[in-house]
Amino acid sequence: MGIVLGPNQYGKAEIRLVAVDRSSPRHALRDLTVGTSLRGDFDGAHYDGDNAHVLPTDTQKNTAYAFAKQAPIGEIEDFALRLGRHFIDTQEPVRGARILVEEHAWARIPVDGEGHDHSFHRAGEEKRTAAVTLQGGEAHVVSGLSDLVVLKSTGSEFWGYPKDEYTTLPETTDRILATAVTARWRHLRTDVDFGKSFDSVRASLLEAFATTHSYALQQSLYEMGKAVLEKHPDIAEVRLSLPNKHHFLVNMEPFGLDNRNEVFHAADRPYGLIEGTVTRDDVDPAPPAWYSLPEF
Amino acid sequence: MGIVLGPNQYGKAEIRLVAVDRSSPRHALRDLTVGTSLRGDFDGAHYDGDNAHVLPTDTQKNTAYAFAKQAPIGEIEDFALRLGRHFIDTQEPVRGARILVEEHAWARIPVDGEGHDHSFHRAGEEKRTAAVTLQGGEAHVVSGLSDLVVLKSTGSEFWGYPKDEYTTLPETTDRILATAVTARWRHLRTDVDFGKSFDSVRASLLEAFATTHSYALQQSLYEMGKAVLEKHPDIAEVRLSLPNKHHFLVNMEPFGLDNRNEVFHAADRPYGLIEGTVTRDDVDPAPPAWYSLPEF
Amino acid sequence: MGIVLGPNQYGKAEIRLVAVDRSSPRHALRDLTVGTSLRGDFDGAHYDGDNAHVLPTDTQKNTAYAFAKQAPIGEIEDFALRLGRHFIDTQEPVRGARILVEEHAWARIPVDGEGHDHSFHRAGEEKRTAAVTLQGGEAHVVSGLSDLVVLKSTGSEFWGYPKDEYTTLPETTDRILATAVTARWRHLRTDVDFGKSFDSVRASLLEAFATTHSYALQQSLYEMGKAVLEKHPDIAEVRLSLPNKHHFLVNMEPFGLDNRNEVFHAADRPYGLIEGTVTRDDVDPAPPAWYSLPEF
Amino acid sequence: MGIVLGPNQYGKAEIRLVAVDRSSPRHALRDLTVGTSLRGDFDGAHYDGDNAHVLPTDTQKNTAYAFAKQAPIGEIEDFALRLGRHFIDTQEPVRGARILVEEHAWARIPVDGEGHDHSFHRAGEEKRTAAVTLQGGEAHVVSGLSDLVVLKSTGSEFWGYPKDEYTTLPETTDRILATAVTARWRHLRTDVDFGKSFDSVRASLLEAFATTHSYALQQSLYEMGKAVLEKHPDIAEVRLSLPNKHHFLVNMEPFGLDNRNEVFHAADRPYGLIEGTVTRDDVDPAPPAWYSLPEF
Repeated sequence: MGIVLGPNQYGKAEIRLVAVDRSSPRHALRDLTVGTSLRGDFDGAHYDGDNAHVLPTDTQKNTAYAFAKQAPIGEIEDFALRLGRHFIDTQEPVRGARILVEEHAWARIPVDGEGHDHSFHRAGEEKRTAAVTLQGGEAHVVSGLSDLVVLKSTGSEFWGYPKDEYTTLPETTDRILATAVTARWRHLRTDVDFGKSFDSVRASLLEAFATTHSYALQQSLYEMGKAVLEKHPDIAEVRLSLPNKHHFLVNMEPFGLDNRNEVFHAADRPYGLIEGTVTRDDVDPAPPAWYSLPEF
Repeated sequence: MGIVLGPNQYGKAEIRLVAVDRSSPRHALRDLTVGTSLRGDFDGAHYDGDNAHVLPTDTQKNTAYAFAKQAPIGEIEDFALRLGRHFIDTQEPVRGARILVEEHAWARIPVDGEGHDHSFHRAGEEKRTAAVTLQGGEAHVVSGLSDLVVLKSTGSEFWGYPKDEYTTLPETTDRILATAVTARWRHLRTDVDFGKSFDSVRASLLEAFATTHSYALQQSLYEMGKAVLEKHPDIAEVRLSLPNKHHFLVNMEPFGLDNRNEVFHAADRPYGLIEGTVTRDDVDPAPPAWYSLPEF
Repeated sequence: MGIVLGPNQYGKAEIRLVAVDRSSPRHALRDLTVGTSLRGDFDGAHYDGDNAHVLPTDTQKNTAYAFAKQAPIGEIEDFALRLGRHFIDTQEPVRGARILVEEHAWARIPVDGEGHDHSFHRAGEEKRTAAVTLQGGEAHVVSGLSDLVVLKSTGSEFWGYPKDEYTTLPETTDRILATAVTARWRHLRTDVDFGKSFDSVRASLLEAFATTHSYALQQSLYEMGKAVLEKHPDIAEVRLSLPNKHHFLVNMEPFGLDNRNEVFHAADRPYGLIEGTVTRDDVDPAPPAWYSLPEF
Repeated sequence: MGIVLGPNQYGKAEIRLVAVDRSSPRHALRDLTVGTSLRGDFDGAHYDGDNAHVLPTDTQKNTAYAFAKQAPIGEIEDFALRLGRHFIDTQEPVRGARILVEEHAWARIPVDGEGHDHSFHRAGEEKRTAAVTLQGGEAHVVSGLSDLVVLKSTGSEFWGYPKDEYTTLPETTDRILATAVTARWRHLRTDVDFGKSFDSVRASLLEAFATTHSYALQQSLYEMGKAVLEKHPDIAEVRLSLPNKHHFLVNMEPFGLDNRNEVFHAADRPYGLIEGTVTRDDVDPAPPAWYSLPEF
């Protein structure tokens, strides 16, 4: 029996990278948070403190900045692919990489009805995400979004569930349904117009959420995933993590008021958490694409 | 010599109130965070644990919810005024009130190019705020906004400052200028169309930020405040708290690359913090309107 | 009528400063977050973008680091006083300063029953704070603490309060009382052994909270402030901000269980917020000492 | 080809549960955050909005509270096992469960040198954690801790690493090494005295961090894991996620000062992130025990 090193990775997390395209007086702004993780032969560092195989995380950070300068960033998935391949191609002990990129949205400040050339305001907290995994010659691209907060003020029911000795929740045919969508979807290919694809997937998710008369958040989850797969043949599967952001109807009977689904207390914790995968039944699963991503 | 109770207040903080206007199938959504603080004669509670004067904070919360049901919420300033006056008018020991309201923005989810009737997505983290103070028969209304994050990718310089033995910052004629605006402005009257006023003030702040060629964040602050006061004769003063969200140019000389204000590291801490007031010189100050608000 | 600059200040916020005393092999560790704000004649920067009077916030940061090297930091109040005086003494346009310091606690890692010489673990999130104000030749020192979370599992009642049409809260003679203490106390002098004073004040606050049979959080607040003033003749006043962190008894009647103050739901929002001052009746107030501190 | 439901789970997250043991006047306090996730046959809910198999998350929450009342909570691992088994045993469609528990530490407030009977203060932000997985008749218990922030002020080097065109980091034989430990360890059995085991594992982690002269954070990680496995024969593997909380030496040459590893800037982002597993080479891996836990 021995004690040995198992799976491991290391890198730089949350590199805050802002790039300005100044090729014309009408600047363009990109705002990314980048994380790099390298996988490979790092036994020496763990067993002996020998760093001969350990490209410093500071160098990984520098590389991300340099790559943003040496060529246009392009879509975040492409940027992540280039960055990951560089580490594998240039450092022999590096056999795999996981690159995470979040993109933060900005919009031009309107001045006299037109967007300003070089003044911007942050456009929400929703993030576009990419998680690229390079391993054994394969490249997996998982695109996504997070912090997309949505709410239906009607068109949601919840009833017909099992009741046991601890059940007190009343059934309802009309409730608020609210969630903060974290979605990730796996592409079957890497030569995709990821920007166009993202816009289309995001629209599919929103439309399906809006138009599904929901009997369960699980149902909404499935319909959202299905809508994406139906419109995007090159996407293999969609994973969704949907916190049920409870809005409790305020009981106004004691004040002599009725409250017909009008005034709610928006609760913080606890919250329901619905997580699931919608997938094509004829694609191979790709566990490495998902390994260690924070959601189910 | 004795030990006595000094200034004090109490209330309920961060009441999360969501209201749906269902008067037509095209629902409207309001999402507020409300805080109430009562001031008055609460000596008994402090000295003796006698609660005869202490309207429970739970009741204050219930009142906020009930008021959202009993009449349309309207503008948050008006809602805060009604709520504060209620406590003063109905509880003899209550002599003053401070009501804080934050409003969170939502937009309709687009479906087939049109906004959906009852499905919404959260529209950013920027908040519209109101801080209403009732005291001694007077009402002070301070409107505001927070978390409005803005950035200029050029049009900002910083030079000509004093240098001492600890100064290492190089002067620059071109830098990124970024901040998260917290602004509060005091109205001279309470019979204002606060919604229309808010939209106009916000536009003034954004335009002034965008169009000011800035030699100092202090200058941008003053121009932003001045723009508001010039267009809004019924606003007495504007207070601005502007963190200087530093974007440091990445030094790429070691990599043999030039970096002409293209790629930046967005830093978290520390940050500059520029705080100031822009005011009319012919209005009386109103210290109670500002007392204990978190900014300078 | 004109539009003019009103009260203003600027500086560097949240300077993260860690200092190691290596004068012996048994290292000592200090971990501070420092904020500097300068007040004075900065009209030029605001009106004209003229920075001739504006010592850069970057220089202020450098100064904090240099001061931590040039002499032992000592108590955070003394460090803040030295830093503030330096800016006033060396920069003619600077007439006043507000220096904020938070100290984060660390303890030695125990190895074989003894604290290690140079290995430490973070000892909680409670912070010791100092807010020093220099203005017009005067120095005000306000010491404090924040994030001291305390709870009484019994010995707290709440009843005898007014009931109106919106009151639903039942009276209770036994409840959990929990809060996160933010306290600030103003010293009458600056030549104090601030470390010794802090330990004693903190013990007074904790003991008073623990031993007060509480009929209202207001009563606990007053007793806590009184305990501090009784034992510390050189402290003029204490300000306390006490969120009432509600613990709601879970109703287990539907499950056929009684729940005699045993199992609680710890709620996040909303929360009661009790704020007050306990003061000596024979000291002069010192509004500048408190101006713009975030609590009531 | 079809679009189908893949792996999924649902439950209640972040149930805030505080329990007081009042069996003697010397109360005991437990403060847990509980999350439940059920796995099984929930096709109906996803495909058809049929909730016949969906025990409400509200019921899951109620169950956690009821279980805390019906028997002493005991160790969090045992509580999680009981809770998970209940759902599987009583709901036919439920085939598996993942129960997460975090425990928050409290200590008695000292009064006259003794801990008070019913007054407590929060003892830090470090959390003890349990992640229990029930699946296919098997039970996996993973214990852990998070937010254990540690720092060595010397005894850490970093050199001998590869340099490429983007490397600028200087080598060092003396640096601050700081991290916030998240550790999880998998037990080979479920009939463990988990409280005693936890205390021993935690001590092993701390001692190994303190006494390892570190040439790489990877080496510290391995030594920490090895120390745990050497002392605890019933633990199969340890997973550690160690952010490298960079402390940058402040360059004081421009001020004419040397800075011999005395004054540091504690940076927020980016940070190195070192993740790895230390395992016995003769135990079977248990992927379900780790699936969807947020760390590598």
